[in-house]
Amino acid sequence: MRKRAVRRKVTRLEVGGEPRVREDHLAAEEPLEIRLGGRPLAVTMRTPGHDVELAAGFLVSEGVVRQRDDVSTARYCAGVTDEGVNTYNVLDIQLAPGVVVPEFGLERSVYTSSSCGVCGKASIDAVRTRSSYDVTGDPLVVDPAVLAPMPDALRASQEVFERTGGLHAAGLFDGHTGELLVVREDVGRHNAVDKVVGWALEHEKLPLRGTVLMVSGRASFELVQKASMAGIPVLAAVSAPSSLAVELADDAGLTVVGFLRGASMVVYSRADRIRSQG
Amino acid sequence: MRKRAVRRKVTRLEVGGEPRVREDHLAAEEPLEIRLGGRPLAVTMRTPGHDVELAAGFLVSEGVVRQRDDVSTARYCAGVTDEGVNTYNVLDIQLAPGVVVPEFGLERSVYTSSSCGVCGKASIDAVRTRSSYDVTGDPLVVDPAVLAPMPDALRASQEVFERTGGLHAAGLFDGHTGELLVVREDVGRHNAVDKVVGWALEHEKLPLRGTVLMVSGRASFELVQKASMAGIPVLAAVSAPSSLAVELADDAGLTVVGFLRGASMVVYSRADRIRSQG
Repeated sequence: MRKRAVRRKVTRLEVGGEPRVREDHLAAEEPLEIRLGGRPLAVTMRTPGHDVELAAGFLVSEGVVRQRDDVSTARYCAGVTDEGVNTYNVLDIQLAPGVVVPEFGLERSVYTSSSCGVCGKASIDAVRTRSSYDVTGDPLVVDPAVLAPMPDALRASQEVFERTGGLHAAGLFDGHTGELLVVREDVGRHNAVDKVVGWALEHEKLPLRGTVLMVSGRASFELVQKASMAGIPVLAAVSAPSSLAVELADDAGLTVVGFLRGASMVVYSRADRIRSQG
Repeated sequence: MRKRAVRRKVTRLEVGGEPRVREDHLAAEEPLEIRLGGRPLAVTMRTPGHDVELAAGFLVSEGVVRQRDDVSTARYCAGVTDEGVNTYNVLDIQLAPGVVVPEFGLERSVYTSSSCGVCGKASIDAVRTRSSYDVTGDPLVVDPAVLAPMPDALRASQEVFERTGGLHAAGLFDGHTGELLVVREDVGRHNAVDKVVGWALEHEKLPLRGTVLMVSGRASFELVQKASMAGIPVLAAVSAPSSLAVELADDAGLTVVGFLRGASMVVYSRADRIRSQG
């Protein structure tokens, strides 16, 4: 098991006070190189752990795979330290026979995107990835009283954040009952979502109909895109969405909820899905 | 002038209350395609405005340019809407004659990184960019009493955040006097820093000796890298740094301050630079 937090001696200071040296925990961040059939595809800075989920979710987000059987094998390869120890920082994914890598992909050698979603796509035309699943018709209706406790539930289940204060979280909830299905943490917010989607792929739960994806930060364009690609009808965030996030949500028929704090929230798109069931 | 905030009708909800539709402001987010000599280099999702600074700072971060004269021209090209209006979303940079694009670059066609720093570099070996400037010997000493007000100063100068709640900020401060030199906002935290560095390039202030770069979020590996590439000796953040950020700061001789809140702060590397000046 790789470490998700790293110990470090730090200096605490108060204005006017004496510096105190003590031990602290830092969120672990290391590069992960994702390879597809042996060819380097992307490097993302991530918190180690759930790497296969991360790679799988990334491939779902990019429209390369749709179901578990599309991935044949995933194994750590190459990447050794000076002492000859596997770094576990290079992961090679073999696709099943017949799985076609989209045309925007490797052939042009520009498909070196990372979990940042659109990073690395050297053309604006390539930014909008076509979703494998249509969420427009998802009949889910979520009660505000079911949404409201989600930020606390997410925070309560964050293992590493408590110690480091440095991790983003993404949690997948049942939109009817509010049950937390899975939570993943990462220094990168897109990575946390990719890990959740990769978990769903491995458990053959795609498309994620009837679910709510809750993220600890803002709702960006890329997060709406990732939710859409996984068939998630509702994206909820603690902070604000961007203009393009809401624009894409309009196009995709996805509900975006922002500023979910305490008992209040703001709904930016498809508000018909958020209403009291009382 | 492009809009940095977009109006939108939203639905406000309280648990148990009636939904209220009202107008709200969203942080604008649009793709920017950066071209180098006419060739697509990167696409980043950014808040419009200060695009030339963003592109210039990105090129500094990537080690392509070091001074203002290295950039010959920057102009918006191509990219028209259906109505034939320039989108101002494609920016072409011409380098001055003799400026060499690093070997990891276009030749391999994998240099499609965005402002995410390492995204798009299809090999871990390419992650550590060699800095143009050595900050190890920067003799700056910052008084904790000079650091403490920086988060409030940064927040006070954020124009768009007030309305949208959705923007990251990066501010450059004089490390001796605490004077705020420039602040930039963006939906992407790396973009905000690139804009600051691009501003410094345009004003011929590189390397940024004696300065403090303050960011509104966490201190990631990429932000330490960008600070180092611009010759900034101190990076301060409201939240936590990652393990790799501190590791790189050790290597580069850069001071990382985290959890800068109220009168308290935590110093993670080169703590000798943070001490009371009596």
